[in-house]
Amino acid sequence: MIKVSVMYPNTPGTHFNHDYYRDKHMPLVKSRLGKHLLYYTVDKGLAGAEPLYAACGHLFCPSVEAFQAGFGPHTKEIMGDIPNYTDIAPVIQISEVVVAKP
Amino acid sequence: MIKVSVMYPNTPGTHFNHDYYRDKHMPLVKSRLGKHLLYYTVDKGLAGAEPLYAACGHLFCPSVEAFQAGFGPHTKEIMGDIPNYTDIAPVIQISEVVVAKP
Repeated sequence: MIKVSVMYPNTPGTHFNHDYYRDKHMPLVKSRLGKHLLYYTVDKGLAGAEPLYAACGHLFCPSVEAFQAGFGPHTKEIMGDIPNYTDIAPVIQISEVVVAKP
Repeated sequence: MIKVSVMYPNTPGTHFNHDYYRDKHMPLVKSRLGKHLLYYTVDKGLAGAEPLYAACGHLFCPSVEAFQAGFGPHTKEIMGDIPNYTDIAPVIQISEVVVAKP
């Protein structure tokens, strides 16, 4: 299983609508990726901890190829939704999940 | 639920022993945190994707207070184990888990 982490650096002066991200954007991603997405999770940086990232979304897919097959055809629509909740440019990490939730 | 992410920046010239991290270090952390840890996960940055982080460990706890209660008494031992698998200084993110694995 692989994990695509989309992380939004917590930069002064930026904004992030956590409600929109949780209620609109991530369900959109799930809908478009369909069978290529196993599940997703969402993190919100804890304000008191001066987080590196304001928020992170993680997409769990069977393989990199599955992610590309699911995401590729919808890249424009999904990326085009980003300005609806933030002006932060996300950074991406693709990982192999070595230990998953038991 | 909160998530403590310990992330090891993928810096040229550094080393990271993924086997030791998975088989020794994270089980040590689990053992020491005991009831304060719900579960943990481990990610390995995908080499072909030029990952931001060589590896990430994520500790899922009921609250920040639970994490502190579990980790605090064992900080020296756990931090002292880091040189056994890497020379990378990790960065930490503490998040609220907004959407967990279904």
